[in-house]
Amino acid sequence: MKLTCRKQQRTMCAQYCISFADVEKAHINIRDFIHLTPVLTSSILNQVTGRNLYFKCELFQKTGSFKVRGALNAIRGLIPITSEKPRAVVTYSSGNHGQALAYAAQLEGIPAYIVVPQTAPNCKKLAIQAYGASIVYSEQSDESRENITKRIIEETEGIMVHPNQEPAVMAGQGTIAMEVLNQVPLVDALVVPVGGGGMIAGIAITVKALRPTVKVYAAEPLNADDCYKSKLKGELTPNPCPPETIADGVKSSIGLNTWPVIRDLVDDVFTVTEDEIKYATQLVWERMKLLIEPTAAVGVAAVLSQHFQTISPEVKNICIVLSGGNVDLTSITWMKQAERPAPYQSVSV
Amino acid sequence: MKLTCRKQQRTMCAQYCISFADVEKAHINIRDFIHLTPVLTSSILNQVTGRNLYFKCELFQKTGSFKVRGALNAIRGLIPITSEKPRAVVTYSSGNHGQALAYAAQLEGIPAYIVVPQTAPNCKKLAIQAYGASIVYSEQSDESRENITKRIIEETEGIMVHPNQEPAVMAGQGTIAMEVLNQVPLVDALVVPVGGGGMIAGIAITVKALRPTVKVYAAEPLNADDCYKSKLKGELTPNPCPPETIADGVKSSIGLNTWPVIRDLVDDVFTVTEDEIKYATQLVWERMKLLIEPTAAVGVAAVLSQHFQTISPEVKNICIVLSGGNVDLTSITWMKQAERPAPYQSVSV
Repeated sequence: MKLTCRKQQRTMCAQYCISFADVEKAHINIRDFIHLTPVLTSSILNQVTGRNLYFKCELFQKTGSFKVRGALNAIRGLIPITSEKPRAVVTYSSGNHGQALAYAAQLEGIPAYIVVPQTAPNCKKLAIQAYGASIVYSEQSDESRENITKRIIEETEGIMVHPNQEPAVMAGQGTIAMEVLNQVPLVDALVVPVGGGGMIAGIAITVKALRPTVKVYAAEPLNADDCYKSKLKGELTPNPCPPETIADGVKSSIGLNTWPVIRDLVDDVFTVTEDEIKYATQLVWERMKLLIEPTAAVGVAAVLSQHFQTISPEVKNICIVLSGGNVDLTSITWMKQAERPAPYQSVSV
Repeated sequence: MKLTCRKQQRTMCAQYCISFADVEKAHINIRDFIHLTPVLTSSILNQVTGRNLYFKCELFQKTGSFKVRGALNAIRGLIPITSEKPRAVVTYSSGNHGQALAYAAQLEGIPAYIVVPQTAPNCKKLAIQAYGASIVYSEQSDESRENITKRIIEETEGIMVHPNQEPAVMAGQGTIAMEVLNQVPLVDALVVPVGGGGMIAGIAITVKALRPTVKVYAAEPLNADDCYKSKLKGELTPNPCPPETIADGVKSSIGLNTWPVIRDLVDDVFTVTEDEIKYATQLVWERMKLLIEPTAAVGVAAVLSQHFQTISPEVKNICIVLSGGNVDLTSITWMKQAERPAPYQSVSV
């Protein structure tokens, strides 16, 4: 097993834009500035799923989501390679990466410019501003977002920190897996929500280097199923148009840097409907008293889904990454519509 | 200091319906059936208050509130003193004690009858039924509640387990303080929401026995301020009519058993407005990602209140009991009205 592990690690260094060594360095870079978030369990959810579920609580992370790991690693990585501090950092983000970069930039005293779609939740925009960053609005389309970002980079002479394709960001997110493998030594699988794929790429690199028999499963909204389609076709297949999903943190498509890792190292992809996401969110709120954002419920919905029942019962100990908790509480009109999806009508929760 | 402690303990045995020895016994009785709930912190809330706050997360407790401690101790206490199991247990409860007794009774295989006001949150009624107990509805008034409870006791030949005046319940709730004194060794004060006073009585007995210099503060809604008025007058002064407060778990008045303990051992009482409770709830939801019920926010609101600023800065390490998390998510219409109260308009949170 050790041989396999070493061999796989070497292959990864050659094939992918990050290696496990980058994740290890990221961990040293950021560990004093982030929380070692707890792993919680729920007897009710174990009962419903017939597995042992472990919830990695990144909603308790600094800035309210895992994104601070990647942002901090990227920003702290910028300092040594430039003779002076960069003039600015720039990114686009539906919110959580924006907050994270704003926080990390403030820590290092660097101005940050965050391009945000007008439609992003209010609480996320306010938090970006609270961390002292400047918000620049874009339309919903990728084109508008990229044009505006390009202009801001030129105007500020700033450095772009891509929310998920930046290698330092991917390596930072991988530190989640280093913690999980320590916190849940007997873990059989990790379930990770996928948007641009930065988190799952970092996690897959780490898991397959340290414990290659542990499965890595992606979870994504059916309405934003580019990861599923890419794996099915064997080629990168971005969402054809901006997806409509309540899981606003995973609207992005996977990209050129994350795709090869996902293609090779992610074991399976589970898609879930909007109703399943809403139901899973409400279940975690009601039963676990954890205020996760709908994006964080995508992994829970995947494990609750009928498709997941095809996974062998030997995959018993499953860690779901609860990616964040930045909910816009003033806009939870969907709550009353969150019906229990059909397959679980009969399960007493 | 040790001498004081011993002396105080002796006095308590004579004066009050429970002693610290009862709390110790309760701990042995229940510890295998409850969670040792975590204590969490929040740098934002420390910053806002200028103190070190520790949040005892009883929202993660079995049945979603601390009430299971008292209910379990009462039920497990009934078994040895009767030759056979009691025919039934009966109580009235705005919800959490009802759920807790239903759960405890189910564990011991005893039928439970819970008298609940029609107005109690739906999620609490459903949970009582999910634990296999029978619900009996009453009007909102104390009289209706007591008449119906009396009838049910007669009809079922059941044993009444009072939600807060039952000594075994008070002793059970005191186990919270045993845990807190271990988990936060440098704690200077505990802040506890007060309805009937079972929790604060158990906690005060424990704290003043083990660490008499540690302060015990009560927190209650201004609209249900019988504890404050009783302490002010020096005599038991129940709420004159059923109080209107969003903190539905603390609508009861303190009673004959809890009053002497509160009179002698509780150091101060802080009252908070409905707006302060709503704001504190929303703050904990947004900033700590913990889905507390408004009742659990009463202690947070107290520590945020202007009145609390009169407390010496030497009372630095403060543990707030987050009593429960049973929120009726379908009825959070108040959320949009939760304005930040005036004194905190300028604080950046």
